[in-house]
Amino acid sequence: MADKKMVEEITSMDEDFAQWYTDIVRKAELIEYTSVKGCMAIKPDGYAIWENIQAELDKRFKATGVRNVYMPMFIPESLLEKEKDHVEGFAPEVAWVTHGGLEPLQERMCVRPTSETLFCDFYKNDVHSYRDLPKVYNQWCSVVRWEKETRPFLRSREFLWQEGHTAHATAEDAENRTVQMLNVYADFLEDFLAIPVIKGQKTEKEKFAGAEATYTVEALMHDGKALQSGTSHNFGNGFAKAFDIQFTDKDNTLKYVYQTSWGVTTRLIGAIIMVHGDNEGLVLPPRVAPIQLCIIPIQQKKEGVLDKAYELKETLSKVARVKVDDTDKTPGWKFSEAEMRGYPLRLEIGPKDIEAGKCVLVRRDTREKIEVALDEVAAKVPGLLETMQKEMLERARAHRDAHTYTATSYDEFKKVFSEKSGFVKAMWCGCKECEEQIKADLSVTSRCIPFEQETLSDVCVCCGKPAQKMVYWGRAY
Amino acid sequence: MADKKMVEEITSMDEDFAQWYTDIVRKAELIEYTSVKGCMAIKPDGYAIWENIQAELDKRFKATGVRNVYMPMFIPESLLEKEKDHVEGFAPEVAWVTHGGLEPLQERMCVRPTSETLFCDFYKNDVHSYRDLPKVYNQWCSVVRWEKETRPFLRSREFLWQEGHTAHATAEDAENRTVQMLNVYADFLEDFLAIPVIKGQKTEKEKFAGAEATYTVEALMHDGKALQSGTSHNFGNGFAKAFDIQFTDKDNTLKYVYQTSWGVTTRLIGAIIMVHGDNEGLVLPPRVAPIQLCIIPIQQKKEGVLDKAYELKETLSKVARVKVDDTDKTPGWKFSEAEMRGYPLRLEIGPKDIEAGKCVLVRRDTREKIEVALDEVAAKVPGLLETMQKEMLERARAHRDAHTYTATSYDEFKKVFSEKSGFVKAMWCGCKECEEQIKADLSVTSRCIPFEQETLSDVCVCCGKPAQKMVYWGRAY
Repeated sequence: MADKKMVEEITSMDEDFAQWYTDIVRKAELIEYTSVKGCMAIKPDGYAIWENIQAELDKRFKATGVRNVYMPMFIPESLLEKEKDHVEGFAPEVAWVTHGGLEPLQERMCVRPTSETLFCDFYKNDVHSYRDLPKVYNQWCSVVRWEKETRPFLRSREFLWQEGHTAHATAEDAENRTVQMLNVYADFLEDFLAIPVIKGQKTEKEKFAGAEATYTVEALMHDGKALQSGTSHNFGNGFAKAFDIQFTDKDNTLKYVYQTSWGVTTRLIGAIIMVHGDNEGLVLPPRVAPIQLCIIPIQQKKEGVLDKAYELKETLSKVARVKVDDTDKTPGWKFSEAEMRGYPLRLEIGPKDIEAGKCVLVRRDTREKIEVALDEVAAKVPGLLETMQKEMLERARAHRDAHTYTATSYDEFKKVFSEKSGFVKAMWCGCKECEEQIKADLSVTSRCIPFEQETLSDVCVCCGKPAQKMVYWGRAY
Repeated sequence: MADKKMVEEITSMDEDFAQWYTDIVRKAELIEYTSVKGCMAIKPDGYAIWENIQAELDKRFKATGVRNVYMPMFIPESLLEKEKDHVEGFAPEVAWVTHGGLEPLQERMCVRPTSETLFCDFYKNDVHSYRDLPKVYNQWCSVVRWEKETRPFLRSREFLWQEGHTAHATAEDAENRTVQMLNVYADFLEDFLAIPVIKGQKTEKEKFAGAEATYTVEALMHDGKALQSGTSHNFGNGFAKAFDIQFTDKDNTLKYVYQTSWGVTTRLIGAIIMVHGDNEGLVLPPRVAPIQLCIIPIQQKKEGVLDKAYELKETLSKVARVKVDDTDKTPGWKFSEAEMRGYPLRLEIGPKDIEAGKCVLVRRDTREKIEVALDEVAAKVPGLLETMQKEMLERARAHRDAHTYTATSYDEFKKVFSEKSGFVKAMWCGCKECEEQIKADLSVTSRCIPFEQETLSDVCVCCGKPAQKMVYWGRAY
């Protein structure tokens, strides 16, 4: 009975999803709270997920010509203030450094909440001619936003992310790069994290402070709430004008550059948990899983069992990321722990199995048990991992589709949101007032104007005036 | 003549080494100054070197059982103050955050200058039993030290580094890990950066704030100055007592853990420049070089030349990191630029070469030109890169040895330092007063008490009292 304790300690997701999430984050040892209010420590099992995300995204970025750089973490106040919308968006939530050593600073500086202003200041001196363009730079770093309420991975005062910042000769180049990077994010989320997304544009109300257009990939969590999972911004030449970033074009005239920025954060780890997790714990898609297969020896003190487990590790390490749990815990506890930690496959091997020349593989997602001959296991594992990866995406997509509703009247719209949790597709007139009305009535926000438009009716679901666009609405993290 | 301009703009290292260094850092486009005083922007070519350093070190760390984590960047003042020596060492040079958003903080926080206190606070809650030990964690991040004078890579207010922090059940385990990591650094510097180092212990005066013992790897730059290139600290259980980090040992008693920390920084890039660079620019050891071979087409507008260059890139990319310089600059300019950027090999290919079925390889370090048949170049390149790597280390070692002197009297000691620049080995009584005297007289510090001791005489070079140890002395960056 004690073997089940680990899992019994976590709250059921149907009972209290928020508590289930927090329990998993702690019990799977992804994160620990710290003495620094609102800031988290990312533990080895959590950080290893981020390392895999970084490695894969970085490869995909570089394949499109991105180069990594590092800018300072501080922004002098006068620099932050150069672009009006931007400073209004960020000044209320930055941390201010006022003293260096024992001396007060002449000008206070904030810890970067995002680095548009620093990249602009850099490009101003680095871009002179059309030959210098495009600049397609990115940095991996942490940023700080002084949030009042925080939640592990989803919202914390400091978080890890990448921020790409590009400069282009034409508006068209900037727009193309903005959409290109959104597509990189969408493909990455689907291929690597098995998370299907809606691609679309943010409304004026929801766009980034200082952007002309913000594009987003929106994912649906298991509880029916939306998670903005990555954004890509087209700045036009607004920042270039504020920072005076000009170049001499081929026609020998001075022109302002056009800019973009785009980022994803450690909240992707939150998305993995909330899309794939279950009441036994974390379920990691095989491609992002730091450990893909955990070997659990049964009756490990019997002669030959541990040796066989290590031998299997040796063999299987050629086709997967493998560990052996050779601790002195009971097998039942180890099963439970392997489930909590979300290892895609576990391999059980005991004296009887060895005698019979077989072992048992258990899929984390379906908990299906598969007997495999020992001499076939290395050939079997890669295919199983690929099948899991594919089926996890399919299940997530089926869940998303089953929780996507449509509404053509405001009554219907309100009824869906009072009874269901998910995306609601509805037509919109394009005005901010309707967004505000909807938010006031239902605590629901426009998630995006999807690239794939449908015509559900001719009129706005809120005000009844002629509709401009179909919008995805939802409650969001 | 214009072709030489790029190189002519840099100061000769014999004339003004400091200016030569700054010129290279700028002209090889490693770093740019920013509007944030004392903080630098690391440009793509500089950051790519750091990425290679990170990847290689991270692999070597993980092979010894290190796991990566991420701790907050802020340290509440009360946490920084817990270990007395540590706070005294760092408080005068930290940046203080006093406001979050529009509100003053209840307790001010510094931006981490190093994270011992954060790791201690974490281990206090994470370590309970001997089963939880050892903890061998590391993080890659940036830290801030409010330096008055700054120099690119060598000393800046913010810099990138890794900091390992470990906790152990016994003093012996901690000592072993401290020395193990110093050896990882020494091997890495020699194998990967072609920089030979002296391994040793810092004196009491020079050790890290809060450490029982600090070990260091010291390298000699081309101008004869020393650069502390990596340090590893044994804290004993001092921090554990200050932070109350106890565990239940096998004998069922509560004990304090023993801790270590160890780090290297982006100053390693400064070391590469100052050990290997010459008057033509940067010289990158092949293993750390982001681009190992640059193909420069001659008369590239002639039919077939660029095609052949791209074909060579395709072939050579299987054995090295390759680029083609197909810009519209002149070949002479491209040669000069390839030298400035320190690419280990350049490959020249023009219409006559193609006709003759050959090309010319030029080594960056020796500038030796080697004619190679086109169908042999892919077989030749890996060996050439390995030879360069080996010879660069040998040359650096020969330079270091030629600039390492001994002194057995204070007159001799003073004479060497007034006439030469390099390491001086001399005997020392072990007291701080002599170190202070030497520093006051000669602006020279003890670099380390080397693991490999020699007996040069029986008495201290400064005070004449009985000698305890042989010490390496030098002027340092």
